[in-house]
Amino acid sequence: MAGAPTIKRDSFHYLWSRHHKPVLYIRSGDRVRFELNDVTSWQINRNSSSSDLARLDASKFYPLAGPVYVEGASPGDALAVSVERIRIDDWGWSAILPGYGLLEEYQTPFLWIWDLSNKRYTRFKSGIRIRINPFCGVMGVAPPEDGYFEVMPPGKHGGNMDIKHLTVGSKVILPVWVDGALFSVGDLHAAQGDGEVCVTAIECAGDVTLRFEVIKNANIKTPRFICKGERPPRGGYIATTGISPDLLDAAKNALREMISHLTSEHNLSKEEAYILCSVTADLRIHEIVDKPNWIVGLMLPREIFPKRKQ
Amino acid sequence: MAGAPTIKRDSFHYLWSRHHKPVLYIRSGDRVRFELNDVTSWQINRNSSSSDLARLDASKFYPLAGPVYVEGASPGDALAVSVERIRIDDWGWSAILPGYGLLEEYQTPFLWIWDLSNKRYTRFKSGIRIRINPFCGVMGVAPPEDGYFEVMPPGKHGGNMDIKHLTVGSKVILPVWVDGALFSVGDLHAAQGDGEVCVTAIECAGDVTLRFEVIKNANIKTPRFICKGERPPRGGYIATTGISPDLLDAAKNALREMISHLTSEHNLSKEEAYILCSVTADLRIHEIVDKPNWIVGLMLPREIFPKRKQ
Repeated sequence: MAGAPTIKRDSFHYLWSRHHKPVLYIRSGDRVRFELNDVTSWQINRNSSSSDLARLDASKFYPLAGPVYVEGASPGDALAVSVERIRIDDWGWSAILPGYGLLEEYQTPFLWIWDLSNKRYTRFKSGIRIRINPFCGVMGVAPPEDGYFEVMPPGKHGGNMDIKHLTVGSKVILPVWVDGALFSVGDLHAAQGDGEVCVTAIECAGDVTLRFEVIKNANIKTPRFICKGERPPRGGYIATTGISPDLLDAAKNALREMISHLTSEHNLSKEEAYILCSVTADLRIHEIVDKPNWIVGLMLPREIFPKRKQ
Repeated sequence: MAGAPTIKRDSFHYLWSRHHKPVLYIRSGDRVRFELNDVTSWQINRNSSSSDLARLDASKFYPLAGPVYVEGASPGDALAVSVERIRIDDWGWSAILPGYGLLEEYQTPFLWIWDLSNKRYTRFKSGIRIRINPFCGVMGVAPPEDGYFEVMPPGKHGGNMDIKHLTVGSKVILPVWVDGALFSVGDLHAAQGDGEVCVTAIECAGDVTLRFEVIKNANIKTPRFICKGERPPRGGYIATTGISPDLLDAAKNALREMISHLTSEHNLSKEEAYILCSVTADLRIHEIVDKPNWIVGLMLPREIFPKRKQ
């Protein structure tokens, strides 16, 4: 990967727009190395505490590296982005931010700082240890509409998809909406469960090397991806379920049941349990056809617990 | 497992009720072998065709083996059910039944008969081959309310949960609502994806051996389970996404995109693609916090395709 051009950490933009000037022009087949800032533009540091969260300036969320102009990419094509390498910094954070996250009853800011100096695992309370699986929360292209758009909601341009499966070895395929695609990337995560239920993963900074290919006339409507799949965790999963005619409600109830399990069996506070679910547990739709009740499960890998507590 | 009492195929009930007479009394720790009829009570046979589907009598859906009375199980306890052995018959079926399933635009009945004589794989069109992973779609206990209740909707009694992870080696933990729990089981599936999107799995008959344990004062609100997790498929997954403020809408769109992919790349009709997704692809909630747009992904294992088509 030596020789791939680098977009440095001091070069970034906020918001999505077709009007951003490209910082790099590449061809289909090229690689680029992106240095990534943390999602708050360094408003949180490794000495921050929960009380600092109230002072966050949301206009500085989602600094994105890019945009990169890919020659030959036109509306109607797709941009395939292969994740070849990810390096993460040696610390990260997760937080409960009132007004965000799946559960409205968590109204007190809460911050947890992670030690990421070991690249395979990071430690939590109660002997819990979480596998590192880094990916970029944001990978996207410029939307076709005029103007400047918030990064938080993902859309047909991809963007803030928070798909935990986009680790090294995976490939995301994005519809192209403007000439050159105008690809940007950010929001590096060291680990996350499907759902990202408390609104943060293990947020961190680092760098990523991506390879780009234009697929002519792909004509896809929404992002697709190819990924390896997770190896089964030692000890398997423990899962709670929510059952409801409404999937959002079912997801909330599955999460509440898991938090109840974690606080009663693993000596965690509710806030710690909520964050633990966000960084390690997966929301799945087990059934969506048995009228009128759907089932959402939250599957937590049991290997995170010390062996005697599995 | 020799010596476990057997509930024979000619002994079954329809509907959930606390008023059903137990067919067997057991103690915590005991095993039972259940012979299971197919979900339509044999209204479909291996020579049936799509035109037979219009004549199905829905009052004969969900014949359940049981109920079993577990001594010592009382309201407030939980019943842990370990799946120790499953044997499936040598054929099965899947169908599109208009009025059911995630996609309302499929209005023509469609039936596919599966050869299950090989216990590891079953074959579909276009060289596609699906791994057998049998589980019981229905495992439940009697609900607390008086009366008789349809089996289709799952609920706090468990029931028709269609959780594909409840294969051999897994354990489901059900809240107990009446004395003795009154456990019943049915709706055997040879394979299914998370979601069971077209409303049928690979439906079949067979038998299952389960072991029961009462957990006193467990005080859980909804079913939980422990499972091994799937091994990563050879070639990983290909996934489509749906992005919407509504999870149901997102799931539908992810499914439509996958059907579009399968019909254009793998020479399947739309109906065949819909059924293929139901028996092999998993719905996952990738993010549920990036207001206002949630992402549901449909992840299809690529190993089902012949190698040159992966």
